[in-house]
This record gives sequence, C-alpha cells and structure tokens, in this order.
Amino acid sequence: MPQQFDRIWHNACLATLREDLAGLGAIERGVVAARDGRIVFAGAQSEFPADVDAPDRIDCEGRWITPGLVDCHTHLVYGGDRAQEFELRLAGASYEEIARAGGGIVSTVAATRAASEDVLIASALPRLDTLIAEGVTTIEIKSGYGLETATELRQLSAARALSRQRPVSVRTSFLGAHALPLEADGDKDRYIDLVCNEMLPAVASSGLADAVDAFTENIAFSAAQTARVFVAARALGLPVKLHADQLSNLGGAALAAEFGALSADHLEHTDEAGAAAMARAGTVAVLLPGAYYFIRETQKPPVELFRRHSVKLALATDCNPGSSPLTSLLLTMNMAATLFRMTVDECLAAVTREGARALGLLAETGTLEAGKWCDLAIWDIGRPAELVYRMGFNPLHQRVWRGQ
Amino acid sequence: MPQQFDRIWHNACLATLREDLAGLGAIERGVVAARDGRIVFAGAQSEFPADVDAPDRIDCEGRWITPGLVDCHTHLVYGGDRAQEFELRLAGASYEEIARAGGGIVSTVAATRAASEDVLIASALPRLDTLIAEGVTTIEIKSGYGLETATELRQLSAARALSRQRPVSVRTSFLGAHALPLEADGDKDRYIDLVCNEMLPAVASSGLADAVDAFTENIAFSAAQTARVFVAARALGLPVKLHADQLSNLGGAALAAEFGALSADHLEHTDEAGAAAMARAGTVAVLLPGAYYFIRETQKPPVELFRRHSVKLALATDCNPGSSPLTSLLLTMNMAATLFRMTVDECLAAVTREGARALGLLAETGTLEAGKWCDLAIWDIGRPAELVYRMGFNPLHQRVWRGQ
Ligand SMILES: [Zn+2]
Ligand SMILES: [Zn+2]
Repeated sequence: MPQQFDRIWHNACLATLREDLAGLGAIERGVVAARDGRIVFAGAQSEFPADVDAPDRIDCEGRWITPGLVDCHTHLVYGGDRAQEFELRLAGASYEEIARAGGGIVSTVAATRAASEDVLIASALPRLDTLIAEGVTTIEIKSGYGLETATELRQLSAARALSRQRPVSVRTSFLGAHALPLEADGDKDRYIDLVCNEMLPAVASSGLADAVDAFTENIAFSAAQTARVFVAARALGLPVKLHADQLSNLGGAALAAEFGALSADHLEHTDEAGAAAMARAGTVAVLLPGAYYFIRETQKPPVELFRRHSVKLALATDCNPGSSPLTSLLLTMNMAATLFRMTVDECLAAVTREGARALGLLAETGTLEAGKWCDLAIWDIGRPAELVYRMGFNPLHQRVWRGQ
Repeated sequence: MPQQFDRIWHNACLATLREDLAGLGAIERGVVAARDGRIVFAGAQSEFPADVDAPDRIDCEGRWITPGLVDCHTHLVYGGDRAQEFELRLAGASYEEIARAGGGIVSTVAATRAASEDVLIASALPRLDTLIAEGVTTIEIKSGYGLETATELRQLSAARALSRQRPVSVRTSFLGAHALPLEADGDKDRYIDLVCNEMLPAVASSGLADAVDAFTENIAFSAAQTARVFVAARALGLPVKLHADQLSNLGGAALAAEFGALSADHLEHTDEAGAAAMARAGTVAVLLPGAYYFIRETQKPPVELFRRHSVKLALATDCNPGSSPLTSLLLTMNMAATLFRMTVDECLAAVTREGARALGLLAETGTLEAGKWCDLAIWDIGRPAELVYRMGFNPLHQRVWRGQ
C-alpha cells in the first residue's frame, strides 16, 4: 500500500532548523510531505519512501524551504498612526509641542478607544498582509492601547478576527499594564488594581488572550506592580511574558524568569544575573532591533551574555506606531545582524524556531519536523544568508500555512 | 474648443515639490493632466479648465501624488552577490579568511567579468523591479565592476537594455576609476592611464554613458588621479560626479565642485570648505544612508553644514553587493530621517526633485510641473510623512511613467 499524502514539495533545499542538527539543519536534496495540514515527512530525498500517493507534487526547482516565519512580538492592532509626531520631531518640535499636537502613546490610546472593532481590523490588515507577503505564518498580537476593559477586549477580539480573515496563526497577549491612562491621574497602584481585579478576569473569561504581558520601566510600571499582574495571571492559568530592561535595568529579566515567563523582550539593559535567571527558567530572549534603531538607542542587548548562558534568542518586529512602525521580519533580521552582530544562523532561528518557542508553540510550528503544522516559506535564493543580507528585497516564492 | 488631454488624475492631493512653493509644494485638491507623456497641467482643481476633453479620467479618491521617485546613485548591474561574505564576517571570519573565500570587491569584479550581458540583465531585473514597485521612475546605474574596457562597456550596455525592458528612465555613469584591478599590480597611475586613454574614449564613442564617476579615497584613487579622469571626461564632453569623502577627507567635495560636478556622493567627512565649494558650483550632495548603516559608519554626513550653505540634498540607495544591498528608496528615506535627522520634506525632495537635479534631469522630471515627463507615484496614505515614517511597508497605489 502506498503512503498517502496530500501534497509533496520535492527538489528543495531544506533549512529544517531541527535542534538535533547543526546550524540551520540544512538538507540539500530534501522533501516535505503534508497530510491534513501537518508535516508527515521532512528530510532527505534519499530517505523518502518510494511508494507514495500524493495528488499534488510541487517541484521546488532547488529553492530553499524554511519554516514559516514567526513574528512573536507585535502591537499590530491600534487606531491612528504617529506619522505626524515623527514629522514634528524631525522638524525640531519640543516634547511639549508634540504633546500639545496630541502626540505620544496618549494619542494612540485615544484613537484606539475611538475605533470600532471593524476599523481596528481594517487598519491592521495591510500591516498583516505585508508580513504575510514575507512568509509569516504565525504572529503574536498584543492589546495595550485601550487601558480600560472594553477597548482591551476589543483589541484582542480584533486580533482573533484577523486569524479568521487571513491564513495565519494568531496568538494574543493581554497588555493592560502597558502604560498609565490619563484618567488614572498618576496613580499606578490603583490602575494595577483595575488590571488585576477587573480587566484580567474579564479577559480570562472571554478566552480572548493566550498570554499576559506587561511593561516594567520607569515610564510604565515597577517590578512590584508587574509582579502583582503576574500573580493574578498565574491564578487564572495564563502564561506571562514581559517588556523588560529596555531603557533601564529594573530587574525585568529576572522577574520574568521568576514567573517562568515564556519570554522577556527588548533586554537592552539586562545584566548577567538576569541572563542566568532566564537560562534557568527557559525564558526566551526576544530582541527587537526595529525599536532599538527607530528610537536611536545606543545600548545594545547583551547578545554575547545570552550566548554564554545559552539563552534562546528570538527576533520580532515589535510593530507599533510609536517606537517601531516596522512590518518586515526580513529587515528585522538584517538589523539584528548589522546592529547586534547576530549571525545568519542565529537570525534565521530567531524568526522561526525561537519565535515559536517564545509563544509556547514549538510543538506545533517553527521547524520542519513531522507532526508540526505544515507552515513553510519557499524562497528564490541561492543560500539562506541572502534573507539576512539584503535590505528591502523580498525573495519569497511561495508561502504555505497548515499545508495550503 | 475643449482642451485635449490623454489622461487626467483628479481628486488628488499633490506634493508638487515645486521650488516656488514652500515645503512639499502641497496642493490639497489637485489635478494632473498629461498629453503625449508630458504633464500639461498640475495644480489646483479650481484652476483646472472646465472645458476639457480627456478619454481617461482617474479618480484618485483623495490619494497623494508625488513625482515618480528618482534613485540617482546605484550599482545595480553586477555579477554574483556577497551574501556569503556577509555571513562569514558575522561568524567572526578575519579579513584574510574572507579574501581567501573570494570575498571583497575582487569577487564582484570576477563575477561581473564572467557574466554575459544577458546574465547581467537577468540578475539586475529583480532589483530593478523592486525599486519600480516602490514608485521609482528614474534610476542611475554605474559601471565599475569590469575595470577593463569590454566589461565596463558590457555593464553600461546592460544598464541601457534595462530601460528597454521596463518602463523606467535609466541614466548611466562610467565608473572605471572605481577600484584598482588585481592585474594592475598596485600601479594606480598606470591604471588611470588606461581609464583615460582607452576606456573613456571607447565609452564616449559608444554613447553608452551619460556621465563619468570616480572614487576618491585611500582605498581607491587620489585627488590628482581623479582630476586626470575628470579632465579627460571634460575633453569628451561628459559631465562628472564623484564618490567623495566617504571614509576620509581627501578634499573630494571641493574637487567635484571644481569640475562643476553634477553631484558629490557619500560626503560623511566633508568639511565646511567642501560644502561651500559645492554650493558655489551647484553640485548636489547625494547622501547614501544605506551604506552608512550597512558598513556601520559612525561619522555622519554634515547635514547641518549643507543646510547652512544651501547645498541641495539628494538621497539614493547606492544599491551594490558590497556595502549597500538595498533596493528600497522608502527605507532609504527612513534611514536618512532616523540616522541623519533629515526632515520629512528634505527626504521627499531628496528622492524626487534633488535626485533629478543630481542627474541633470530637473528639466524633465522630479517635480509635478507642466512640460515635464508625466512621472507619478500615487500613494495610499493620509499624509506624505507616512512614506518616511514606516519601515518595510509599501503604500504605492499606482505608478505612472511618461504618462502611462
Ligand atoms: Zn512591544
Ligand atoms: Zn556608489
């Protein structure tokens, strides 16, 4: 009896990203076979069974196949944009002038609160489509521009809706503890009460969030306030992650590790104790070079420290209107290589396997291995390094999400 | 009798870039009309004649129209790529190891010499198509990877051929004085003899070059050697331009100005005397932030100095395999704003009007004014700043080259 597959991609070079293989886990003459949306074989042509029945056989003509890309940290759903603020800043406007012109995160919160779910979805779709056009098959999307229950839920609901409108896996994170809303009048503790006692239970019972995120920073919340959010999330059975150590070292990495966070993100100011704690907890370091570049940070994340402690490194766009209006994971890789000196292999693992790990989805996607969703990106390239080396060029030939 | 037009774009916001208007020369309710590939009207709807005959009327639905973009400095035509070198460097390879692996400009020269004209055209087309997809209607393309007569001519011929295969205006520059070929055995003066006595006459009589370029730098040619090339170019009636002051100050800007160069390009190390000389000569400063970013320069070009001396600022991709594998003018603008603090208006002028000026084409393109080629980019944006602010996003709605 021949083995039954739905679809076979043959005559391909595979970057499997398997952890049991070195580097990219490359297989030069490879085959991927799918059934029911899952990979059932990904390996060498020579090991592929001879007796096979597959209605759909695709000759990849020597192209490279990587896992579908994973953008594991985005704020894709929001109202308005901040192009005017960007323009004013370059023209030399002061902080006060920009605030008076309605700039800053306050403006995004106001625009998001004023937007219906349909408007939020419609404005996010071109950004999502741009990411998809570069091979993204899994994306994380955060709330955090509502800062009150109804809008936070609406953002999360819009994010879920995107996954019904496009062939892409969406993971959502509730980020109520993103910033202090104006109406809180400077009282961070009372706002955290609201996050823990009203927003989080509503989010949990809605089923709209896959994880809980927070922002630990002087301009946001303290480590103690963050810990309260994490305790509440744990009580509701929700995994956590954290915007940590971006602008200063408040011990965010260690705090995230203490709560067994899926990931700690940004990490420009993380110290050795933080890196060691992350390694012990298995917390992934999500680096966001787009934000580093756009806000002209000078302190780079300690990549060498993460390597030394074997902390897993993921990369993401951080797509957001204020500090990273970026919708390219390819460019994100170039920035990580150019600015942070990450290697080609590290960059490619960071937007596939490690991105999936950062979302708790490594069992489902992120590598080319039997049993996982058949999420593929097929590239018109001679070698994988081209995906990192070029700037503003998209060599995607075909994208496959769950076998299609 | 109604006025006859071929095509009208109405209900548009125009960024005319006219020099007699402030900023972008914006006209909020505008019309562009074309006949025989030229703009015959670009202005306010209220001033548009009522009695008009045009078979083709396009409702722009409030979108913005800018002049078609001009990429005024590229090395688009070359053999091979340098992704492997990029990968090795990130992996910590030494200069010698990279040279042994065949890296550096030597590898591009070898690959270009080995490539037929058809191969050169085929490899350049995806890069050109990427630029065109972002609204580029005029592109400059240099030779400089042959470093001997036949290959230099083949590169220029390939560049000309690109303009027959795509709807785009191509200007070519002969860059024989780009680097010293291996076979010159270190003798720069003798190689410059070859450039002046053999290559330049052949290039001039072929009609394949619109201008002559050179690279003044310690790793390339001295100011005196460059001057010899410029004298020879002048004798042949060819305008000049220069790769100047990129890595050190050898007086390149002043030298370019002395010869009335169309542009001096890079300019990270230009001093006040150089800027003043450029202003007097009307030499455009072409800044190349992609190369600055990619090779991680730390010395920024003196934008404030250029402003003070009213030197015109253009921007270009510098698309080349070694120091700027960049095929996005939108990203180039973002880099100029983010890294060099150029304003939104400066960036947009730099890829339209000033790019055209840098090519000696300001009478033909670069602004929305009657008499010029009807080269347009029509954008799905709410304000022009979005074109500079976003990273890795292409809001081009439609592109028009010479009225089509
Ligand atoms: Zn973020
Ligand atoms: Zn150049």
